[in-house]
Formats: sequence, structure tokens, C-alpha cells
Amino acid sequence: MIRYYDKLETRSPDARRSAQAVALPGLVAHARETVPHYAMLFAHLSPDAGFTSLPLTRKSDLVARQQLSPPFGGMGAGAGRRVFMSPGPIFEPEGNGPDAWRCARALHATGLRAGDLLHNSFAYHFTPAGVMLEEGALALGCRVFPAGTGNTEMQARAAAHLRPGAWTGTPDFLKAILEAGDAAGLDLTSIRRAHVSGGAFLPALRQYYAARGLTVMQSYASADCGVIAYETEAHEGLVVDEGVMLEIVRPGTGDPIPDGEVGEVVVTVFDTSAPLIRYATGDLSAVMPGRSPCGRTNTRIRGWMGRADQAAKVKGMFVRPEQIATLARAFPQAGRMRLVVAQDAGADAMTLRVEAADGSMAEALATRLQALTNLRGAVQIVPPGSLPNDGKVIDDTRPVG
Amino acid sequence: MIRYYDKLETRSPDARRSAQAVALPGLVAHARETVPHYAMLFAHLSPDAGFTSLPLTRKSDLVARQQLSPPFGGMGAGAGRRVFMSPGPIFEPEGNGPDAWRCARALHATGLRAGDLLHNSFAYHFTPAGVMLEEGALALGCRVFPAGTGNTEMQARAAAHLRPGAWTGTPDFLKAILEAGDAAGLDLTSIRRAHVSGGAFLPALRQYYAARGLTVMQSYASADCGVIAYETEAHEGLVVDEGVMLEIVRPGTGDPIPDGEVGEVVVTVFDTSAPLIRYATGDLSAVMPGRSPCGRTNTRIRGWMGRADQAAKVKGMFVRPEQIATLARAFPQAGRMRLVVAQDAGADAMTLRVEAADGSMAEALATRLQALTNLRGAVQIVPPGSLPNDGKVIDDTRPVG
Repeated sequence: MIRYYDKLETRSPDARRSAQAVALPGLVAHARETVPHYAMLFAHLSPDAGFTSLPLTRKSDLVARQQLSPPFGGMGAGAGRRVFMSPGPIFEPEGNGPDAWRCARALHATGLRAGDLLHNSFAYHFTPAGVMLEEGALALGCRVFPAGTGNTEMQARAAAHLRPGAWTGTPDFLKAILEAGDAAGLDLTSIRRAHVSGGAFLPALRQYYAARGLTVMQSYASADCGVIAYETEAHEGLVVDEGVMLEIVRPGTGDPIPDGEVGEVVVTVFDTSAPLIRYATGDLSAVMPGRSPCGRTNTRIRGWMGRADQAAKVKGMFVRPEQIATLARAFPQAGRMRLVVAQDAGADAMTLRVEAADGSMAEALATRLQALTNLRGAVQIVPPGSLPNDGKVIDDTRPVG
Repeated sequence: MIRYYDKLETRSPDARRSAQAVALPGLVAHARETVPHYAMLFAHLSPDAGFTSLPLTRKSDLVARQQLSPPFGGMGAGAGRRVFMSPGPIFEPEGNGPDAWRCARALHATGLRAGDLLHNSFAYHFTPAGVMLEEGALALGCRVFPAGTGNTEMQARAAAHLRPGAWTGTPDFLKAILEAGDAAGLDLTSIRRAHVSGGAFLPALRQYYAARGLTVMQSYASADCGVIAYETEAHEGLVVDEGVMLEIVRPGTGDPIPDGEVGEVVVTVFDTSAPLIRYATGDLSAVMPGRSPCGRTNTRIRGWMGRADQAAKVKGMFVRPEQIATLARAFPQAGRMRLVVAQDAGADAMTLRVEAADGSMAEALATRLQALTNLRGAVQIVPPGSLPNDGKVIDDTRPVG
């Protein structure tokens, strides 16, 4: 079996960094010329502005921008073949050319090869999930059975007849199909591999599939970015896709954080038909140290670790991670900060927990917090390194509903 | 607006007949070489056998054949990109190349042109309906919003935002979307044209769309044959697709019947990657006399007029249209025949109604009917031309259930 999709996967990290550094200025220039959103966003940019000084484009702003300027809010340069509507709603134009979401590499790492039949249990309606995986499989020379979601028993019957070698869908749905097959006495042993995405792939589920002799790998992907990272046979985190430059930033900022720290995933996608530049996904993840034993040399991340979008309504006012980030910049000598929002005797209460060597900053922090949020909050100094590394900047502990 | 998709549509009927006559021997030879089903079916065929002596391939036999010889029952030569499962179940491989179901011509006749956005409300899951229309639209240079079936109000919201110029789906579903849009105060006036298929397009619905200023045309298509015939701006029946040779035969036989008579649709599809030769669809239709005022010169049919599959279980025994056809061949001097199956005092009763000038054949007919079916039946002679022209050979009038 050919291990790698291409030579990009095993080039040296230096070679990758150089190639990206060479490609970036052209990508930015092209985006300014062809994508109205970037033309505006970068209009007053100094020509020698460094990459990490480029403003972010936030996924969370897209809904409002698209309502204001339909259909795509000035995003999407290409004349892709299809358009989609994902929850939000966010409207997405497809990039140009085949496999615009770059799924072929991820499916190849899962072991799919030309001639395989892929049973595709992602939805093709409204969202691009189904066609994303289909395009990747077609690019590898696979055939696809577009099954969609639902109709569990009919999916089992179709698979028993068509005998696909591979399956794709959300992590838990294959289990439902296999068990429907078991109940109906169907032979589904043709399915040897599965590629899952779009939901948490928990250890118990991994063990279930392993016990049935299945090879199952996941990817972290989205309708707007395509594949961001994918699992390999090493099963150690997810390797970043070769078409993506990934940053992990402090939520609410564009500031990179050290490897290992949990923060927001920001991606730049090297696709001239649908360029994304410093696109803040709203997802949390962290870089894993070291190199994958599978031989792929790209950065590894820990996969999807939750949502970074932590705005909370406190006493009727929005408090946003950006405000806490501003506070952190004003106190560079502090460590991590986390605003805990709680309910105290029926009223909202804020406590800013700050890692610091001593309590000397406490009063200044409280004053600044009130100035930024128009809300009073307590400040609690905690020892350096004592706040959890989970990317949370605002921790809303109030009961839901 | 360019009126015709290509010059094939307006060539003389003689030129079309000649071109088909030239192409047929090659198609048959290619099917024998590449499609196991045709290799077997035509194995003992005389080299100079005429086209109408070629045995039919019945859609109604496919389910059993595919269960015996999975997945496709020896049909499907190509390495198409996708495979499907339609109700039956019938499993279908996609033909090679873009627009394998030849939908572009039908959509062009409806008025779709490059650059249009098509809101596609056919399902992409299991059956190929969605991708059939999508491939046709992409071949024309349109963009597609794959909406699928269901989620009526969300479809209305998507259309209000994306502002598609054209819509496709089953005939009644656009009405549901438009009314959901009305109820929600949405502007859906961007939709100017619609192409409908997959169900009866009744006059009341036509009037509803016309009153809203919409241009709506239908096609008669199936997952296995692709487009068979399509409506044009003349709104006089459906014009046969240029990739198809169509026959109307007496149900249960391969015998062509005169123009105007209702019979079973048999198609030959000139597609070397998925050839169909004398494929009996099980659908009823009739040829319309004359030529379409739109300028297209191909045969017109009356569209889908019901199912030809009329086997009935009488006193526990199957009676099939083939048996009535055999009887008709034995009595060439008779006109139309129809076997009426009724319930008489709780028991099944058969009456063979036969168009004839006098009653001289009645006794011979009754004897032969019993020999063929192992069932006793009455014979009733009726005046020539008095039986309805509806393609029915067996009329089962017993209460259902």
C-alpha cells in the first residue's frame, strides 16, 4: 500500500514553512483583487505588514455580514459549481475544480484507494458534507454510494447488497448501521475502513469499532475551510492538511499562543478560488508537540476541543473574549485569565481569575475590567499555571434555561 | 434566447431515423461485448435478426436478477462514479462522463442557461434524482443549490436569500415552498422557471403556477433510462430525447402498436457506457400524431400514463398481459382485448372483452383462454373501437385489501 498521498506530506518542516512563506504574499494579493471582503479588510494595510498583523475574519461575523450583503457577504471569489446553506445560516459557494475541500488526502490516510466503493452517509442536502467526501473519494478514483443520513436499516440493506469496502459519516452512525445489520441478519463484513467527521469520536466508540476489526480514522473539517487536519495510522492527534496554514490563537485575539496551549483555530487556506486568510473558526484545539511516527511531518493538533465562541450575557450586557484579551494585553506580566460568570442568590456575578505571582495587580485589574465591560467584577489572584489549559476565557457556570 | 440545445433537435425525421439505423448495430455489438446481461440475452441471435425481433429486457425482472447476481444483475458496463439504490430495490450504476442521464437538453428546453442558479429539490440520497438534474444543470454552466426534499420552510428561506432563477423537483413541492414563503413574508419572485418530474403534473397545478407568472415544464425520466422525453414551450406532449429510441408496444409483448394507441414504453438508449436495448419500462404512454410547433422534429408522446405491469392473481394463479397478448396473436382478426377481473359473490371471476364484428370467435376464444391460463373465463364480444384506448390489457376491478 502506498503510504503517502504525495511528497508534500513528508517534506521537512522548513521546506513547508518556506513554501508557505513564498505563497502567502501572492495569496493575499489575489484575495484583495478577487474577494470583496478582503479588498475592504486589507484596504489600508501597509505593504510590509507581517502576516500575524493581518486582521482576522471571524466565522461568527459571517451570518450578519451575509444578511447585509447577500448571498455570501463578499466572500467567495470563484464560480464554483454548487452553493450551500449550513446552520447559522451561513451560505457557502463551492471552490473551483474537483475536490475543492481537499478530502482526498484525508481519505487516502484512512486507506481508501482507487476502485474502492465508499458508502457515504453524510448529507448532501443544504450542507456540503456529503459532496465534500464524495469529491475526495472521486479524486482518488473510488466509486461512491450516496446514502445520506437516516434510513438506518435501508442503509444496512444497501451495504449488504453493494458490499462497499469503506464507509464515511458521523462517528456514531456506523455503529447504528452495523447493529441494524446484525438485527436483520445481514453480512456487512465488506466494510473494512471508515472515515468519520462532524462529531466527537469518543474512546468507547473507537473500542467498539476496533473490536469489530474495523480501521476507523477521523478528520477535522468544516464546510467553509474543508479539511483542516486528519488522523493517520499513528493515531496520535490529527495532522494538519497540506493546503492549510494553521495558527492557534488566544480566543478573541489574533495572537498566537505557545504550542500545547488550547486556543482558537485560525486557518489560512491556499486555494485561489476560495481563499481564506486568517479565518477564525470559533473552534478550540491545541498543537501537539513532536512529530507523528507515521512519517508525516506537518504539525499535529489534538482535534476539535469545543467552541471558542464564549460571549456571555451578564446582567443584560454582552461580555466577550475580546474584552478579556484586551485586559490581558494591558497586564502582560499576568498569566492566564478566566472570567467566571456565576449565579449568586439569583443575580449574575463575575469573578476574574488571574494567574500571577502576587496580588499587587488585583485592584488595577478590577478597575480596568469595569471600564471595559461596564460591569463590576471580583478579581481573584491564583498561582501561575493553576488555571486549566482548555482555551476557556469566559466560563459561564450559570444553570442553563 | 437560443431556442435549441443543438441541431439534432431540428433535423428531419428521416435523418434521425437514418442516424439511429446506422448506430444500432454498433450499439448492439458493443452491448454484447461489454454487458454480461446482453451477452447472454443475445447469445443465440441470428446476425441478421431485425431490431424489433430483439428480446426485451424487462425492468420488472431486474429485482430478481440483481438478487441472484449482485450487485447489478449483469447490467451496467461502465465504471461510473456513483451507484444508487432505487425502490424495488433496483441498484443502478451511473454511466460514464458528465450528464450521463442527459438532463441538460430538457433543462435547456425549460429555459435554463449558463450562469443561472438552480434550486434543486430532488433527493440526492439513495436514488440518483438529485444528481441527475444537477449534472444536467452543470453541463449547461448553471450553479446548483442542492436542497433535497423536505424542510419546506428552510427551503423557502434559502431561496429568499440565494435568489435562484430556476427550481426543480416534484410537481407539487414548489407550491408548498411558495406557500411557506408567502406565510413567512419572504420574496421568492426570483424563481421564474421550474422543471418538474417524478409525478403527475395535473392541470390545476399548471394553472396555479401560471397564475404566479412561472414557466413550468416537465420531463419523463427514470433512474435507469435518464430523460426519455421532455416538455417544450409548445406545451403539446413531451418530445422524445435525442439519445433515446422509443417504441410503444402492446403490454406483455415486444410488438409495436399504431401511433396513438396507449401501450408500454420501450426504450433503447444510445450510451455505450450504459447501453439499454429494448428496455421495457413498465410505464404506459402513447405517441401523439403530428409535429411540435416549437420546431423540434422528434416524436412526441403523451407523457407518463400509468403502469403497464398488470399481472393479476386470479383464484391463486397469476394471469399476465403476455398471456392476453398471445391470445391476441392467435386471433388477428379481433380488435382490442381486455380481461376484466371482478369479484362475484366473493369469488374471482374473469371476463374477456373482445372487439369483433360478430360473435363467431367467442367459443374458440374461451377455449383458448382456459388453455392459456388454466382458468375458466366468460367471453364478451363488443363493437370494434368500443374498448378504451388506455393501454389496459388486464383490468382488475376487485376491491383492494
